[in-house]
Order: sequence, then C-alpha cells, then structure tokens
Amino acid sequence: MSNPVTFVNVIDVEPSQQPELIDLLKEGTERVISQRPGLISVTLFASADKRRVLNVARWESAADVEATQADPAAAGYTRRVAAIATARPGLYTVVGEYAPQ
Amino acid sequence: MSNPVTFVNVIDVEPSQQPELIDLLKEGTERVISQRPGLISVTLFASADKRRVLNVARWESAADVEATQADPAAAGYTRRVAAIATARPGLYTVVGEYAPQ
Repeated sequence: MSNPVTFVNVIDVEPSQQPELIDLLKEGTERVISQRPGLISVTLFASADKRRVLNVARWESAADVEATQADPAAAGYTRRVAAIATARPGLYTVVGEYAPQ
Repeated sequence: MSNPVTFVNVIDVEPSQQPELIDLLKEGTERVISQRPGLISVTLFASADKRRVLNVARWESAADVEATQADPAAAGYTRRVAAIATARPGLYTVVGEYAPQ
C-alpha cells in the first residue's frame, strides 16, 4: 500500500533575490528531482510580494523523500538555496480537498 | 482574459492545537469559501510535525480573493484562526510545474 506524501518547502527570500531563487529551484527540479524515483509532481509558487517561494512536491512515500534528501546532487541544491534564502522544509499530508459548491 | 492566482496561507500552530485548526479551516471552507464566486479548488495540508497547516486555494482572479477577504463571514473565520495560530496569507502565481522524467 502506498502512502503518498507532500513535501513542502516554505522559503523566505529578499525580494531582490526571488528571481535567482526561482531559477535555482527550477534547475534543481529539472536536473535532479524530476529524475528521482517516487516523484509524482512538483509545483513552484512565487508570492506576489516577492518575499516567498513555495516548492510543493508530491511523492509516492516518505521513504522516497528521505532517499532524495540523502542524494548528494539534491543536497547540493539544498545548500545553494540555503545560501540565498531561509528554507523551512517539511512533510505534509492532504487533510481536505474541496471544489466549488 | 482570466489571470488565475493561488492564495496560500502558511499557518504556524502549537502541535496540540493542530487538530482544532484543521477542523476550523474545514468548517470555514465548507460553509463559506466553497460558496464564493471564482473559487477553483482548496487543498488543506497538515505537517507531519504538527506545527503547521497550509491552506492552498486556487481562484479565477485576485479580485475574487479580495472580495472574499472583505466578506464578513470569511473575515470571521480569519479572526478565529488568528486566535489560535499565526497566519501568513499571500497571493502566489505558479512559476513551474514538473512531472517525472
């Protein structure tokens, strides 16, 4: 039985560096994360106030996330993000989904 | 032309109050948000460490979000969330979407 999880990284950044952060996240997703086993999807969100970026990645299991975090190529991108921004990564589960009524 | 936006509320909470916060967000979504014009979808995420909840709502436009924030019923739920948690709401746009390669 699979237990899908969502990895969300809430990343605070100086507004002037939001474009650089977005480029870095796109590069890491394309070169590393999108190749990793267990990945379902990644969505990157940029805040209109330019102070935050959200990285929302759906995975087949928490074990897939842990294995990716231990991968040296992924860890390299984590360090590069930490050099220009403040990241708060975490594992989440969906507790509600709604459509218009 | 529509310019869809994503409203994300990053909400920090004491772990003991995460269940209460989730129940409150579910109630507000069901009773108020899901009835609002322009809503596309809402997803609620609970962090595994119990310290955070994310409310991710897709809307047809920023104007729909502003009209909802001005709605007294929605504002009532915003106040109830603020009484038990620390909310950081913001408007976001999708800057990247990826599937496995």
